[in-house]
Amino acid sequence: MAVAVKALFFDVFGTLVDWRTSIAREVKALLEPRGYALDWLAFADAWRGEYQGAMEEVRTGRIGFRKLDVLHRRNLHLILPRFDADRLTENERRDLNMVWHRLDAWPDVAGGLAQLRRRYLLAPVSNGNISLMVDLARHNGFPWDAILGAEIAGDYKPKPRVYLAAAEAFDLSPDQCLMVAAHTADLMAASAVGLRTAHVARPNEKGPGRGEAKPSEPVDIGAKSLEDLATQLAV
Amino acid sequence: MAVAVKALFFDVFGTLVDWRTSIAREVKALLEPRGYALDWLAFADAWRGEYQGAMEEVRTGRIGFRKLDVLHRRNLHLILPRFDADRLTENERRDLNMVWHRLDAWPDVAGGLAQLRRRYLLAPVSNGNISLMVDLARHNGFPWDAILGAEIAGDYKPKPRVYLAAAEAFDLSPDQCLMVAAHTADLMAASAVGLRTAHVARPNEKGPGRGEAKPSEPVDIGAKSLEDLATQLAV
Repeated sequence: MAVAVKALFFDVFGTLVDWRTSIAREVKALLEPRGYALDWLAFADAWRGEYQGAMEEVRTGRIGFRKLDVLHRRNLHLILPRFDADRLTENERRDLNMVWHRLDAWPDVAGGLAQLRRRYLLAPVSNGNISLMVDLARHNGFPWDAILGAEIAGDYKPKPRVYLAAAEAFDLSPDQCLMVAAHTADLMAASAVGLRTAHVARPNEKGPGRGEAKPSEPVDIGAKSLEDLATQLAV
Repeated sequence: MAVAVKALFFDVFGTLVDWRTSIAREVKALLEPRGYALDWLAFADAWRGEYQGAMEEVRTGRIGFRKLDVLHRRNLHLILPRFDADRLTENERRDLNMVWHRLDAWPDVAGGLAQLRRRYLLAPVSNGNISLMVDLARHNGFPWDAILGAEIAGDYKPKPRVYLAAAEAFDLSPDQCLMVAAHTADLMAASAVGLRTAHVARPNEKGPGRGEAKPSEPVDIGAKSLEDLATQLAV
């Protein structure tokens, strides 16, 4: 890379945290004692399945920007009837929505970020809101320099503004920033506005064998894990 | 306090970092080798002296929001002629402006924040921009959960929006947030929109005996240092 990279920007859901098994486990912990016996992984998949559609309402301008927590809550409302769970109270729904704040990181993440932090500024550039990112950081020990991403940009990835707002917050040009994600589409959108790209393999993100084991388009770096990324960046 | 405080918001210049002797030292390190022999503390005072006036241009809407780094640069341009230093090149001015990113913390701050972090979310709610806050955090080891303040609010303290935007970013009501500052005016503005207030004594901020040894209006907590604040909050 001709221009030196100064900051690493991270996608979070799927790239750093295992949303699927975390959501299944946390929802089960809340609902099983109340007498529910759902397919917990199917519930996680259904909830996440409404994710892009809800953000698209914001990206197209049909609704104004609102935090991902608010969209998650709307999506929960949509899926509960499908699981015969629509008699849950407002308080129970609110508690359920907070499970997104307690997702566990993949095992390589804490060690990888600690290494990468020695040489680079680190920030999440996620569609998750600031409070959600803060709670995930406390839960998993992510050593962020700042919380960037959708909420400071007022729009959702893959809109260009989100990547550019992150670079501007750090006073960096786009090519001084490396976007790290397990999703080729996220990286292509970052690359289109000038950021460098690193793909991290998460082959089991959406279930066994249902995740990106490698990027489907050319990227600057392809890594097996964050530790592998640190090795390739010679940190 | 009836409602439990969840987050501590910090003023930075003067409250956490000693801008005056840091600026004097850093400016001297840059300019003395170039043959300048200024009154370095007077230079720091003059530069800081333009601070409120520049922000007032933004607060009143006469100019759009721009980062504090940009205002510092404008202010530098204003004061250089007073010190017979207006032959400095653009590159030298740019380097000089970066001294604000290398200010040292008062001696109680690192220990105090480490204690406070055990129980509270911590964020700067400063008029400094994100990159400036990130550099000060790296320089001094401030363990922030997020960088809040003027840049995410798009306005400058003591405008109400800055305090309220910080509370909203953490999904907290104003009375769940404690503003910590060495300046009574900052605390009164925070209190006016519902935040709790803690004053930290910095009696020598602007020179020996030229700082607030105590608040000039009632506050919720008066502390001698951040370590004293941690003790009073029983962390």
